[in-house]
Amino acid sequence: MGAYLGKGTIELNNAPSILSYASAVGPKEGQGPLANYFDYIGEESTLGESDSWEKAEVILQKSAFRAALEKGKLAETDISFIFAGDLLNQCTCSSYGIRDFDIPFIGLFGACSTMAEGLGLASVFVESGVAQNAAAMTSSHFCSAERQFRLPLNYGGQRTPTSQWTATAAGCAVVAPRKDPPYIKAVTFGKVTDMGVKDVNNMGGAMAGAAWETIGAHLANTKQSIYDFDMILTGDLGMVGSGLLIDLFKRDRIDIANIHADCGMMLFKNKEQDTHAGASGCGCSASVLCSVILKRITEGKLKNVLFVATGALMSPTMIQQGESIPAVAHAVHIGG
Amino acid sequence: MGAYLGKGTIELNNAPSILSYASAVGPKEGQGPLANYFDYIGEESTLGESDSWEKAEVILQKSAFRAALEKGKLAETDISFIFAGDLLNQCTCSSYGIRDFDIPFIGLFGACSTMAEGLGLASVFVESGVAQNAAAMTSSHFCSAERQFRLPLNYGGQRTPTSQWTATAAGCAVVAPRKDPPYIKAVTFGKVTDMGVKDVNNMGGAMAGAAWETIGAHLANTKQSIYDFDMILTGDLGMVGSGLLIDLFKRDRIDIANIHADCGMMLFKNKEQDTHAGASGCGCSASVLCSVILKRITEGKLKNVLFVATGALMSPTMIQQGESIPAVAHAVHIGG
Repeated sequence: MGAYLGKGTIELNNAPSILSYASAVGPKEGQGPLANYFDYIGEESTLGESDSWEKAEVILQKSAFRAALEKGKLAETDISFIFAGDLLNQCTCSSYGIRDFDIPFIGLFGACSTMAEGLGLASVFVESGVAQNAAAMTSSHFCSAERQFRLPLNYGGQRTPTSQWTATAAGCAVVAPRKDPPYIKAVTFGKVTDMGVKDVNNMGGAMAGAAWETIGAHLANTKQSIYDFDMILTGDLGMVGSGLLIDLFKRDRIDIANIHADCGMMLFKNKEQDTHAGASGCGCSASVLCSVILKRITEGKLKNVLFVATGALMSPTMIQQGESIPAVAHAVHIGG
Repeated sequence: MGAYLGKGTIELNNAPSILSYASAVGPKEGQGPLANYFDYIGEESTLGESDSWEKAEVILQKSAFRAALEKGKLAETDISFIFAGDLLNQCTCSSYGIRDFDIPFIGLFGACSTMAEGLGLASVFVESGVAQNAAAMTSSHFCSAERQFRLPLNYGGQRTPTSQWTATAAGCAVVAPRKDPPYIKAVTFGKVTDMGVKDVNNMGGAMAGAAWETIGAHLANTKQSIYDFDMILTGDLGMVGSGLLIDLFKRDRIDIANIHADCGMMLFKNKEQDTHAGASGCGCSASVLCSVILKRITEGKLKNVLFVATGALMSPTMIQQGESIPAVAHAVHIGG
């Protein structure tokens, strides 16, 4: 049974398994370095049948979910609960995506931390026996996110060097009682952390403090050090945020540079694909986790990964009112 | 330990307690029939110190949370996790409200179903021992919701007869291991249900089907009938949605009219206060539950309440694209 270790950390003594996982991405992501790991790559940003960016994102979630069911040889009725959320106002793509399925829905908002938040909750539910199988899912779409959070694409605005490219991607993982690896060993839910950043084109800067806070809490509460992990995988800090995170740990006299990786720096060939500081969006960490990372853990190539999805809880309304951007990060220890 | 009964329902065999609860409301709610039950009533819609409606709503959440801590003789450090969300884009008021506290934050989006969603999750966490105390909280504000979901107030738009008045209110409940009543006995997380309603001024109509679906699932899964409850308390269906819910049950040959109550019809003197079909918003069911209802259960005047908060997952973007409004309802069985 799970145990509370204090300050946000839960140890999962029965360590439930990730029974199945899948990812669905857009064409730009399909031209990136992880192309071979994705289950579904759309030919166009509209993902074929949709007549809006939002509806395209709904298709991404449905595709990832259906692929996860298929890969796990699962029926819709095998899923007790689905934990999902996304970046769009009113978590549109999750509720419209899940509308077609007959599955109890627990809606989340954690911005780009959603994959870790959902995976953590699904794991607690399975560990404690209140769910048989539980799915965690999230998505993002470059075009729907840009017009909601920044400027309409048609405006053709210049992107700053610190800006990240919202991934057109979705990921879904199904957690089940302990059987085969990958196992979920522990979870730390993070606190809201505000670095005072007000620049909507510097999400990495806004989120680095939350990642530092949550990783630190996880290590302290579980009495582990960074050397207990093969990889500390942050959500989507990108180049700017990753640099800041490494610097924050340096102040603690801890050098994480060799153990740290960031989903935002893995999804694209950043220079070639002109994605500036890297990738971002809920779908970034979700699709990187639910492809190459979980595959490598399954194959035994990675033994212990601390997956730390980071979310900038950025509200354009509050930014217009002069407020800074709070952030949150949740950590999930996934092991072989 | 909790047990999964199937189709979204979790039985909490140790039935955790609601250790403390509190509500904070605006001036209009303070002139309504429940005025004596609220812990904090603001004199103005700006709630004193704020310079925007959104910041006023942040104050509501903070006030409800602080009052719940105080009433429960709890320190901030006694709360393991806080489950919170609200109606505003990017769940603004929850993340900005909780930013000042040093507590792990699990962000939710369930629109007006958020109070039941959070209370259900907090109960599962406490029941299964992965949290010591967990808080559930949500809020809404008439002025911030109107300008986000419908029209700016300054426009002075005419309100239709089916429209509901978003409550300026917040509620917070702290769940703790079993001690004194009220107890949380069971939870049903609902599915996304879409009645095909496209009218943004008829939230009750959009949500009635979700309430019917979740109440039906809860009764079937727990092998209970409506007569096992003193009160089936829906979130905020208002007059239109409540009538539809009663009609839907009539088709099943079940007469719930005498057992059914609706938070949306309890908050205001609807005719006198010109609130048309009743109250709505996350803060409506949260403040009604966290005042008169939990007080009556504590006093033994109500023995078994099925609290069914209903959420219209309404996205203005999707409505503009011709889509209908999906809805969700979550049920929590609270008993003495």
